[in-house]
Amino acid sequence: MHTRTVNVGVIGAGFMGKAHSLAYAAMPMFFWPAPAIPRRTVIAEVTDELARDAAARFGYERWTSDWRRIIDDPEIDVVDIAVPNDQHPAIAIAAAQAGKHVICEKPLARTAAEARAMRDAAVAAGIVHMVAFNYRRTPAVALAKSLIEDGTIGTVRNFRGTYLQDWSNDPDLPLSWRFQRDVAGSGALGDIATHVLDFARYLVGEVVQVNGLMERYIHDRPIPQGGADQLAGAAKIADAPRGPVDVDDEVLTMLRFAGGAVGSIEATRHAHGRKNFLGFEIHGDRGTLVFDYERRDELQLYSADDAADRQGFRTILTGPAHPYGESLWPIPGLGVGYGETKIIECYELMKAIAEGTPADPSFEDGYRITCIADAIAVSAQAGTWVDVDFGEGSSS
Amino acid sequence: MHTRTVNVGVIGAGFMGKAHSLAYAAMPMFFWPAPAIPRRTVIAEVTDELARDAAARFGYERWTSDWRRIIDDPEIDVVDIAVPNDQHPAIAIAAAQAGKHVICEKPLARTAAEARAMRDAAVAAGIVHMVAFNYRRTPAVALAKSLIEDGTIGTVRNFRGTYLQDWSNDPDLPLSWRFQRDVAGSGALGDIATHVLDFARYLVGEVVQVNGLMERYIHDRPIPQGGADQLAGAAKIADAPRGPVDVDDEVLTMLRFAGGAVGSIEATRHAHGRKNFLGFEIHGDRGTLVFDYERRDELQLYSADDAADRQGFRTILTGPAHPYGESLWPIPGLGVGYGETKIIECYELMKAIAEGTPADPSFEDGYRITCIADAIAVSAQAGTWVDVDFGEGSSS
Amino acid sequence: MHTRTVNVGVIGAGFMGKAHSLAYAAMPMFFWPAPAIPRRTVIAEVTDELARDAAARFGYERWTSDWRRIIDDPEIDVVDIAVPNDQHPAIAIAAAQAGKHVICEKPLARTAAEARAMRDAAVAAGIVHMVAFNYRRTPAVALAKSLIEDGTIGTVRNFRGTYLQDWSNDPDLPLSWRFQRDVAGSGALGDIATHVLDFARYLVGEVVQVNGLMERYIHDRPIPQGGADQLAGAAKIADAPRGPVDVDDEVLTMLRFAGGAVGSIEATRHAHGRKNFLGFEIHGDRGTLVFDYERRDELQLYSADDAADRQGFRTILTGPAHPYGESLWPIPGLGVGYGETKIIECYELMKAIAEGTPADPSFEDGYRITCIADAIAVSAQAGTWVDVDFGEGSSS
Amino acid sequence: MHTRTVNVGVIGAGFMGKAHSLAYAAMPMFFWPAPAIPRRTVIAEVTDELARDAAARFGYERWTSDWRRIIDDPEIDVVDIAVPNDQHPAIAIAAAQAGKHVICEKPLARTAAEARAMRDAAVAAGIVHMVAFNYRRTPAVALAKSLIEDGTIGTVRNFRGTYLQDWSNDPDLPLSWRFQRDVAGSGALGDIATHVLDFARYLVGEVVQVNGLMERYIHDRPIPQGGADQLAGAAKIADAPRGPVDVDDEVLTMLRFAGGAVGSIEATRHAHGRKNFLGFEIHGDRGTLVFDYERRDELQLYSADDAADRQGFRTILTGPAHPYGESLWPIPGLGVGYGETKIIECYELMKAIAEGTPADPSFEDGYRITCIADAIAVSAQAGTWVDVDFGEGSSS
Repeated sequence: MHTRTVNVGVIGAGFMGKAHSLAYAAMPMFFWPAPAIPRRTVIAEVTDELARDAAARFGYERWTSDWRRIIDDPEIDVVDIAVPNDQHPAIAIAAAQAGKHVICEKPLARTAAEARAMRDAAVAAGIVHMVAFNYRRTPAVALAKSLIEDGTIGTVRNFRGTYLQDWSNDPDLPLSWRFQRDVAGSGALGDIATHVLDFARYLVGEVVQVNGLMERYIHDRPIPQGGADQLAGAAKIADAPRGPVDVDDEVLTMLRFAGGAVGSIEATRHAHGRKNFLGFEIHGDRGTLVFDYERRDELQLYSADDAADRQGFRTILTGPAHPYGESLWPIPGLGVGYGETKIIECYELMKAIAEGTPADPSFEDGYRITCIADAIAVSAQAGTWVDVDFGEGSSS
Repeated sequence: MHTRTVNVGVIGAGFMGKAHSLAYAAMPMFFWPAPAIPRRTVIAEVTDELARDAAARFGYERWTSDWRRIIDDPEIDVVDIAVPNDQHPAIAIAAAQAGKHVICEKPLARTAAEARAMRDAAVAAGIVHMVAFNYRRTPAVALAKSLIEDGTIGTVRNFRGTYLQDWSNDPDLPLSWRFQRDVAGSGALGDIATHVLDFARYLVGEVVQVNGLMERYIHDRPIPQGGADQLAGAAKIADAPRGPVDVDDEVLTMLRFAGGAVGSIEATRHAHGRKNFLGFEIHGDRGTLVFDYERRDELQLYSADDAADRQGFRTILTGPAHPYGESLWPIPGLGVGYGETKIIECYELMKAIAEGTPADPSFEDGYRITCIADAIAVSAQAGTWVDVDFGEGSSS
Repeated sequence: MHTRTVNVGVIGAGFMGKAHSLAYAAMPMFFWPAPAIPRRTVIAEVTDELARDAAARFGYERWTSDWRRIIDDPEIDVVDIAVPNDQHPAIAIAAAQAGKHVICEKPLARTAAEARAMRDAAVAAGIVHMVAFNYRRTPAVALAKSLIEDGTIGTVRNFRGTYLQDWSNDPDLPLSWRFQRDVAGSGALGDIATHVLDFARYLVGEVVQVNGLMERYIHDRPIPQGGADQLAGAAKIADAPRGPVDVDDEVLTMLRFAGGAVGSIEATRHAHGRKNFLGFEIHGDRGTLVFDYERRDELQLYSADDAADRQGFRTILTGPAHPYGESLWPIPGLGVGYGETKIIECYELMKAIAEGTPADPSFEDGYRITCIADAIAVSAQAGTWVDVDFGEGSSS
Repeated sequence: MHTRTVNVGVIGAGFMGKAHSLAYAAMPMFFWPAPAIPRRTVIAEVTDELARDAAARFGYERWTSDWRRIIDDPEIDVVDIAVPNDQHPAIAIAAAQAGKHVICEKPLARTAAEARAMRDAAVAAGIVHMVAFNYRRTPAVALAKSLIEDGTIGTVRNFRGTYLQDWSNDPDLPLSWRFQRDVAGSGALGDIATHVLDFARYLVGEVVQVNGLMERYIHDRPIPQGGADQLAGAAKIADAPRGPVDVDDEVLTMLRFAGGAVGSIEATRHAHGRKNFLGFEIHGDRGTLVFDYERRDELQLYSADDAADRQGFRTILTGPAHPYGESLWPIPGLGVGYGETKIIECYELMKAIAEGTPADPSFEDGYRITCIADAIAVSAQAGTWVDVDFGEGSSS
């Protein structure tokens, strides 16, 4: 038997390009035999110099400063989109039309309209399509999913999700694309709240109504002189000319789920001390689950079925007994990092390609999350509950 | 010098009667010299037998089954109202009119209209009046107050408050007064969300707009055959006739504060595993504070003013260096419990009486919290933001 | 039926006098019907002024500056010894010989020889005798005891105990009696390690061999000008004349138990940041228990009998379902503090007196702990394992 | 400029072979420009089949079932020893004599005598030599090192180290090489306590005296029918013939450091619930540091230099502001796993090779740890303190 090799072309060599490249190199080391072996074939960046450097650093055979050459390359099986949000639709649609499988960073697009076009193109092309909500790959989150599915916490009543960061607190942090509506679509809403929405849908089901509130704290930022998006690592440039921030820094929303549960989300990049505090607390009528990505090896489970005098939140430390665990490390507590979430994502993508099955979360999921995000923005303007409009033709 | 003795008449010998009695006995042991020495003069319960038993148990000199005798007793200086919500107005107004100082359990009343009458009577009588939001007496909460006031966390942007319990999850728990609108006024909203509202107002300022959501999970409960309110300790009676629950089990709300901050509250008695999870997370533009009453000796502080390589949440363990600490125990970590919150409350009440100064939180505060609670109920019906109406004549 | 009143004479009105007075006042409020009702009859301090003040503060009917008057008082049923260690033997022996029941603060005495004389006097007199190791009264510790006894964690293999404080780190803290061998007997060993030894014996069984190490970090301290022992609350007096510290600041020891388990203890008053970090971790062949008094409402339990994919430490929050819980507060998480440990201790003492049964821990237990402490000191000198000598006539 | 390529030959494709292979592939993705680019040239396993499979899985160009071919291969620059302990000396000495750089898994050897021969060969050959104590690469541990070196916690007084696991609790887990003295040298002592000793020496300094205790809980185990070491993931084989375990399951020891500090270590593979609980608590005279690898992104720091009313343990979440952080992920809390510890180790190895500087920890360090381990075993037999003998010619 011969394991299939899958040729990958990655577009973008920033934070996400690095994470995805690690995944392509490492996935078969963990998941063995691998469903397919990804080959780091080509990487694109905006200049020849950046692209050449990226190929050397991340181990690609070739490089290009023109992403369309990847689309046109018959050898390429998968196009991996790791560039800012405004470029997602053009690349994804071109790739789909060229018959390439596509994985696209989140959010799928700036708006539901854009995302819908991407989904439609992907579906029409019959390709494997995946949106890169990697945090659901954390073994503890996958364990939460299985504990909900097997009834351990009963019927879900309440989902509270938070994604708290603090890296944008400094008003002298550069005006990266993440602060510009025409590139990013929105701020905390698209950048981080969408990860919580992915948790909400994955774990509880479809979100049908929202009632949100959005705030902006920093109204302008210094204009950078080029250079990549560096998040918390960016150098501050207090004396540069400043340009306007036109996205939200913080979003709160209440939620209603199709199944009757209620919930809330808080997402902000201005919560001092919270670095990557992406988590949830889910109350069911038989138990509770709590997760915080900052302690990502742990899932908290409380079961009302435990004996009365020894009920308490269990801190389950994920390992070989849990989802993906046999492929990761041989003892719980050796610990997974951000890289492993991408390695597992890569495994799921390669499995879908090898087996010819749909990927999960797909562009349909990515599209629906933009629908919910759009509804949150509308409700924040209106100050009232808004039904989420998933459009005609969506399967719910 | 002679320390004044203050004669106290307590009405109600349930959970709160116990807690207040402990406070009267213990306060001078901690706060010495005491501003005044409370004397456990008389206690009222609904029958002679219960009242006599309460007097023996809690160390009162006299007892009565008619609370009006306490009002009429010229020896009594303070009336302490520790009975269900529906009885607060009649007792408090009678006591005020008789010139007694009054401390009343929370919520002050079932509705803002009732609470307003109580406030008006208290103000008209010129007495000292206090509503018993004891959780703000936790030294860690008082420390949070001082850290906000001295600017440690800068301007507050966001307040997230939670009060999560799980004792009412069992559908066979008796239909106590806490599940009946005509006695309690509301459910989780009045019973526990009001404590979070007290935190919100105490720490961040006035709440001016709300946008809430209320849910009921258990729709009827077995009718008890008499007996006191026992919360989680109540015996279950699965085979008794059942009566309707007509209050909320869970409330979510978004908030807008007068000073511009936003926030949210989640209060539920159906969060398995959360026993008395009353807490907050407050983001300022220079730092963050986090508190959870289940670990009530601890306040978490993150300061952006710490050196960059050693920023992190500090777990401050309250002790002699913190509010009330010199009077409590001589080492941090010996630890305070529920009793100490009531002992400190008693100290503040006695100080106000001895010094002739207003108590804090007063009936005005108690009234305003009922205004906010009423607005939350209205907004939950309307599905939109509602301005809080504090009525004419309220000082803001 | 009439509940018996027990007349108490307390000797010493410092930290322990306060804690015990609170317990006498509050115990029946919690444990009702009470086994007996303690009456705060008389309190002794070293001067008339201090004694008079203590009686007013702590609610005693009478006061004295001569503790022997308490011994001679026929009305007194119980003598409560809350003075420095060097005074324990004379008072306890006199009280026993006068037929009074005795509760004595820990450690029982400076040396095993002294403690043995106290035990012998108490046994000879047939009185109820108790040594005040209050921390075992913490509900979570009592729960640990029951979980070990019912086999939940299987056979105990390892006990690791710690008692870490930091209040004596400052070299300018006054030379209180706790730093003087002729008053205290030893330093961290007698003051705090004995609490861990009480846990070890209570939870695992008799300690038969030790191998210790003792360190002194601060060699002299400013001599105070009178005033009570104030621990961390003491004013610093950098410019006063200094006297020698001749006790240990820190003690480590390895242990062997009669039942075959091994263990270790670390006790220090120089662990910055640890305020009252009294805890244990106990490994059995079926599970583990972990406790830290700084989070005293919580017991951590790991059971290998849980299903493989949901094993994890449970944080059990003590409440009505746990030892003493029905008498304390009606919901887990309302929380107990230092006071409750003394209230429960008082309940156990009164129950023993009312029922005529032996108290636990008795002077025999107190004596045995001094034997172990003496052996640790010998082993620290010898640098080798030492068998604990419990003397002739001890029942094991 | 052209970055040097370093050809690596790895011997062993088990848990460590996987971890090292990941590091060789990923290191330049993180550390860029890389000091040198490792090339996965050849991998050895015990059979052709296993070796061929490992090459495919881990991305090696060639494979062999005879490790001596790697030694003899002139293209190879670095030999990486990832096989059981008994094979370390022969391979390492052969590699050194062939002029290869060597990285060897820990413990360096079964005994100090073996380790000494390895160190002597490496020093004589003038190669770069490193022992793979990867846990010190955790950014939080490297941060602890820098906080000690810059005086943040003052003079270290006490080091308490723990390495608690539970995977060997099951008596039906196979008799892997880790349970056999002739292969492993010792049990918990060599396997895990040595990691704590590496922390102790790295953070506090040389260990000069020990006083230990060793226990064995499981005395025989089922003999496996071949197959790799799988730790917690191993299938249980209750009905197989059993062979004797002749190593320790648990070790306790007290320590004395050259600089005057004292300490203790507990290492066990029988602590239910502790999966990879490798940590320390270090008390200095100005502060405290606490680390637990199960929450490896966090370092706890308490500083007595903080203002009195806001002292508390800070939970520092490592990120770009901390050691190695700029090369890892752009926000604290994205989180590192086991893989990153090996990636950083690889970076340090390549840097030493590229710059021609000694690696750290070297075979000298690895040797000294075996000296301490041997002394612990001797002291456990003798029941007394033992001076560590580092032999003649060791530089201290």
